[in-house]
Amino acid sequence: MFVNDLDSRQVNVLQQRRVSLGDRFTTPVLLWSGVAPPRNFPANRYPFRASSHFLYFAGIPLQNAVIYLNQGDLTLFMNDASPEDALWYGESSNVKQIAEKIGAIAAYPLSHLPEIAQDCATIPVQDLTTRQHQSQVLGRDLGPANDLQGQDLKLAEALIQLRLVQDEGAIAALRQAADVTVQAHLAGMARTHRAKTEAQVRAAMEAVILGADMTPAYASIVTVRGEVLHNMQYHRSLKPGALLLADVGAEHALGWASDVTRTWPVTGQWSSSQREIYNIVLAAHDACIAAIQPGVEYQEIHLIAARVMAEGLVDLGILKGNPVELVERAAHALFFPHGVGHLLGLDVHDMEDLGDLAGYALGRTRSDRYGMQYLRLNRPLQAGMTVTIEPGFYQVPGILENRDRGHNLQIVRTGSAWLSLPMCRAFGLRMMCGLQKRAARC
Amino acid sequence: MFVNDLDSRQVNVLQQRRVSLGDRFTTPVLLWSGVAPPRNFPANRYPFRASSHFLYFAGIPLQNAVIYLNQGDLTLFMNDASPEDALWYGESSNVKQIAEKIGAIAAYPLSHLPEIAQDCATIPVQDLTTRQHQSQVLGRDLGPANDLQGQDLKLAEALIQLRLVQDEGAIAALRQAADVTVQAHLAGMARTHRAKTEAQVRAAMEAVILGADMTPAYASIVTVRGEVLHNMQYHRSLKPGALLLADVGAEHALGWASDVTRTWPVTGQWSSSQREIYNIVLAAHDACIAAIQPGVEYQEIHLIAARVMAEGLVDLGILKGNPVELVERAAHALFFPHGVGHLLGLDVHDMEDLGDLAGYALGRTRSDRYGMQYLRLNRPLQAGMTVTIEPGFYQVPGILENRDRGHNLQIVRTGSAWLSLPMCRAFGLRMMCGLQKRAARC
Repeated sequence: MFVNDLDSRQVNVLQQRRVSLGDRFTTPVLLWSGVAPPRNFPANRYPFRASSHFLYFAGIPLQNAVIYLNQGDLTLFMNDASPEDALWYGESSNVKQIAEKIGAIAAYPLSHLPEIAQDCATIPVQDLTTRQHQSQVLGRDLGPANDLQGQDLKLAEALIQLRLVQDEGAIAALRQAADVTVQAHLAGMARTHRAKTEAQVRAAMEAVILGADMTPAYASIVTVRGEVLHNMQYHRSLKPGALLLADVGAEHALGWASDVTRTWPVTGQWSSSQREIYNIVLAAHDACIAAIQPGVEYQEIHLIAARVMAEGLVDLGILKGNPVELVERAAHALFFPHGVGHLLGLDVHDMEDLGDLAGYALGRTRSDRYGMQYLRLNRPLQAGMTVTIEPGFYQVPGILENRDRGHNLQIVRTGSAWLSLPMCRAFGLRMMCGLQKRAARC
Repeated sequence: MFVNDLDSRQVNVLQQRRVSLGDRFTTPVLLWSGVAPPRNFPANRYPFRASSHFLYFAGIPLQNAVIYLNQGDLTLFMNDASPEDALWYGESSNVKQIAEKIGAIAAYPLSHLPEIAQDCATIPVQDLTTRQHQSQVLGRDLGPANDLQGQDLKLAEALIQLRLVQDEGAIAALRQAADVTVQAHLAGMARTHRAKTEAQVRAAMEAVILGADMTPAYASIVTVRGEVLHNMQYHRSLKPGALLLADVGAEHALGWASDVTRTWPVTGQWSSSQREIYNIVLAAHDACIAAIQPGVEYQEIHLIAARVMAEGLVDLGILKGNPVELVERAAHALFFPHGVGHLLGLDVHDMEDLGDLAGYALGRTRSDRYGMQYLRLNRPLQAGMTVTIEPGFYQVPGILENRDRGHNLQIVRTGSAWLSLPMCRAFGLRMMCGLQKRAARC
């Protein structure tokens, strides 16, 4: 158990969140933190990650803890460490001291949960062992968090309204995570020219994150095969002419995420055709950020990226036709098959444990239109939201060779613009963007 | 899904293992690899670690796969990747190709499992979702792997007999993991003098592991508070006079573990009293390794460490009395509270998923005697076993201040030998040791 020293300002932020939830949702709430899952045997566990809903109100990653939220007050349920725990894991603060630090009004052992559990709403955690405990304490079967019913669904809707708008405490932690991420990317770029493998660049990047006492927010992607969107292999050699795509982000010790992708040439020098494509992606990226402001539909940001990329590809002679029409026909999605970004917060895809409930405004669902089906965020932007902007150009053989998708489009392959596979398949450029009250600042 | 290129020698090793199991256990066996557990939402998962029993026979970490072992033959059950998977995770070999690579006699999708599942023995995996699938396919409830019954227990006993003795393939992978671990420790030592925090040293050490495309075999311990045996915090400052304890080991991409602890002074210079204690631990370490050979009881190795440490502490005037008697009275355990080591193999505590079934010879159980209760290995050593040797000297306040344990012992505190808390509490020195046919070589 590890209690960061929260300062009074941080505790105030937590208390404000609890009060805000109480204002929106009057049913009492129980939120579980979860436990670290075992890796290959019970004593060898993955690093603990507390449930984000728990962290949002409790502030610190307490393992196997439960919070009771009622009318703005928090009560902590957690067992004191055993004497044996003290030998192996150190003398820790007792639960009463922890409760005080996080501004709880009281603390009880877990065995007292049934006394207050009746009619409480909850969000099921990811860890199945803990979810069984949730079901047992609440006396009802719980499914996964992306399929909620009744009061749990109402609770999720209230949590989303709160967590969509980042408060001062969240912004501070997000900024710290972003700062470390920038350092990690700079270290990765610096390491590339003398690295022999993807693994060595990944190591240099993650060392910056670990050295700052943070953790990667998600499985890092550091690859010369960036056209595989979630490529998590690191064994390939770095060869001159190749592009390295790095999608690496730090997570703050209290859980706040960052998410940045950059693509750079292994040698440090772009070829002219690489530079042309890169500039298109960069233009899309900049256009999206310039367009971001409260009230704008995020889907419109996605379409801006698509249009700027279609224009650039027409200019280069890779696509033929009118860019607006090309986007309507999803031609851009041959090279930019995913959505332009997503919510960012305690989770790198914030609140994605709730399925599309946070990402999609009430009444909206995923489009099955080609090029739109991977859009994770479709709601009007609000002041205080944090989102990512991550256009990319990928030459995915499975897409480009798929006649069903390509047959209505005129794709022109020319020596200079169409890049020879497999060296230069990916041009990801993704960054985070915080929405301020009056204007976008990134 | 990631298929390392196994060479024909590696495949031969796998096939020999399958045949050896068939010789010892005639019931057909189904072994599941498991899935990566979700971290905070379903698309953000911990790194996948296949079950070690699966890895032992399949050779490569295939996710959500099942192997059927019968009379020395392996049949693979696994689903081909979907076209969507190819977009996100890359075109992978199809299951038929994978089956060929690992020397399977056939391959089927998972839906065919029920056809052969009847009366098969299995070992439950750690991941609860997969364990539910195991129960469903086998048509019987499965508890955890450390509480087996019937044919599953018999299977575990056969697996233990096999996995206790490392074959050529295992030794090669263990050596590779150990080599990387040595480099990681050297990097950690080199980084310490200009590091400000534990986190920076940890980062330098894990960067070596990640850079070699391996992974830490367990949560690294890199701490100036080494007296907390499993301390997993890295935020503390490195101050002159303090000792840094690093317990960090690499795991080979195919799952084989290493486990090394070293303790060094933050400044690079021992004080004279630090050096005295360190030399005692080093003497214990060397004496254990010198004594290791086939036929020797591992418990005796543990007691050698205890006796050498008791002698050294008497010489230093920290303990008073006859060392042999002091060990009988568990005086050494005030400073050396854990066991001297454990099995090492695919798991860092090899086969500890089976509880003490692998660590303790048939009919033996853990002693409740103080100083012996944490001994994880108690069986005669055999040629081909790999074990760790890790004596340590720890000043744990919870132990030293415990009157119940200390009142019959004369512990003398002197300025020179008893080290002032909290700077110098830990002198861990742990290493791995492979047992060769005729003599110990480490």
